[in-house]
Amino acid sequence: MDQVKALVFDVFGTVVDWRTSVAREVAAFFAKRDMTVDGEAFAKAWRKRYQPGMEEVRSGRRPFTRLDVLHRENLELVLADFGIEPASVGDEGLDTLNRAWHRLDPWPDTVAGLTRLKTKFFIAPLSNGNIALLANMAKHSKLPWDAILGAEVARAYKPQPEAYLRTAEVLALRPDQVALIAAHNGDLAAARLAGLKTGFVARSAEHGAGQTKDLSAEQDWDVVATSFTDLATKLGCA
Amino acid sequence: MDQVKALVFDVFGTVVDWRTSVAREVAAFFAKRDMTVDGEAFAKAWRKRYQPGMEEVRSGRRPFTRLDVLHRENLELVLADFGIEPASVGDEGLDTLNRAWHRLDPWPDTVAGLTRLKTKFFIAPLSNGNIALLANMAKHSKLPWDAILGAEVARAYKPQPEAYLRTAEVLALRPDQVALIAAHNGDLAAARLAGLKTGFVARSAEHGAGQTKDLSAEQDWDVVATSFTDLATKLGCA
Repeated sequence: MDQVKALVFDVFGTVVDWRTSVAREVAAFFAKRDMTVDGEAFAKAWRKRYQPGMEEVRSGRRPFTRLDVLHRENLELVLADFGIEPASVGDEGLDTLNRAWHRLDPWPDTVAGLTRLKTKFFIAPLSNGNIALLANMAKHSKLPWDAILGAEVARAYKPQPEAYLRTAEVLALRPDQVALIAAHNGDLAAARLAGLKTGFVARSAEHGAGQTKDLSAEQDWDVVATSFTDLATKLGCA
Repeated sequence: MDQVKALVFDVFGTVVDWRTSVAREVAAFFAKRDMTVDGEAFAKAWRKRYQPGMEEVRSGRRPFTRLDVLHRENLELVLADFGIEPASVGDEGLDTLNRAWHRLDPWPDTVAGLTRLKTKFFIAPLSNGNIALLANMAKHSKLPWDAILGAEVARAYKPQPEAYLRTAEVLALRPDQVALIAAHNGDLAAARLAGLKTGFVARSAEHGAGQTKDLSAEQDWDVVATSFTDLATKLGCA
């Protein structure tokens, strides 16, 4: 990790807790309308449609489409699955629900860790989220990014190599001067194949009780930490 | 300006003082090599090649090329004009000089003004500078941007309408929900034609003694201020 100048971060699950944030917003949204919706089940069902939505873009069947648009399309499908007619929610309501992804809360160690890491490294998200989503989230959760990078800047969704390589290029760095920090072994494997350095931070609460995936490092990642503050210590940030 | 949610800023001249920053770096760089170079004349000569370099891209004669690359090409031309063989400076030296544009100092009111404006608006650069340049500058000068936008995100150089329109699109806002803040009447005129709101902040020291251009507002811009702190007051930011 000695040559690394920039740390780029997976966001959903690694930086923020999407599951409980979306669950809370969804439950509250419908409670105001005197409806009872299982927020956690809804959040998980919404997230389950995340990869198939992006796969349409990765495969080339669809031109690059930002995540806000994919989230919104998936929202209407999930509402139908929950027996709720999307039209009954109204356009403004759908937009409010969709923007729950702009207001995700960080894990308790996130802001303290990023603030320390920022003293030594250039820090930015390398997320499949679009720029407005990530920037609004940063404003909401006080994430001290140096820039907002990711799929919309690279015009490619992870784990396609272009997502990693174009991010290094935008930073005018070689791939091995950039490290991806993620809670997902698959994301790190793709980053390593593209030539980036890799750091694993376990987020065993991401999927709630009974999580079976990504509980530990599955390769010899360049750094492995238990939290962002532990990562800061391991990377020599005061 | 009531519907405006995001303020986007011209950077070179409006947010930062490129002239004295580059002049100081250039003079110091050559002084270390026991050479005397007129830093201010060099900075102005370098800046003079800025528009012709971008015009190659705007005209379609050249694919989108980020400003760091154009700056570097222009640097070699300016060195030759000053009787300095670029090869004698060395690759590392050329890179150090080129990155003077990443280390521009803000005007005295910039950071205080942006910090107040950020409490009410989404704030981002809409500059022809590339992402790494703008993000390194933000880190150097503590500019509290919510995101780094501009030509490299829009893949178009101002004053082309795409530079303004794609920036609004990335923010998921209508053009009239975005205001460009600039010290240059021409930039504001192009932004207004694209449907953005406009704010003028005079920077009468940008070009040094004898500046004749952009000393005052030449159209009825939506807001006119004498500094970023005055702008914050006029836009109701505590």
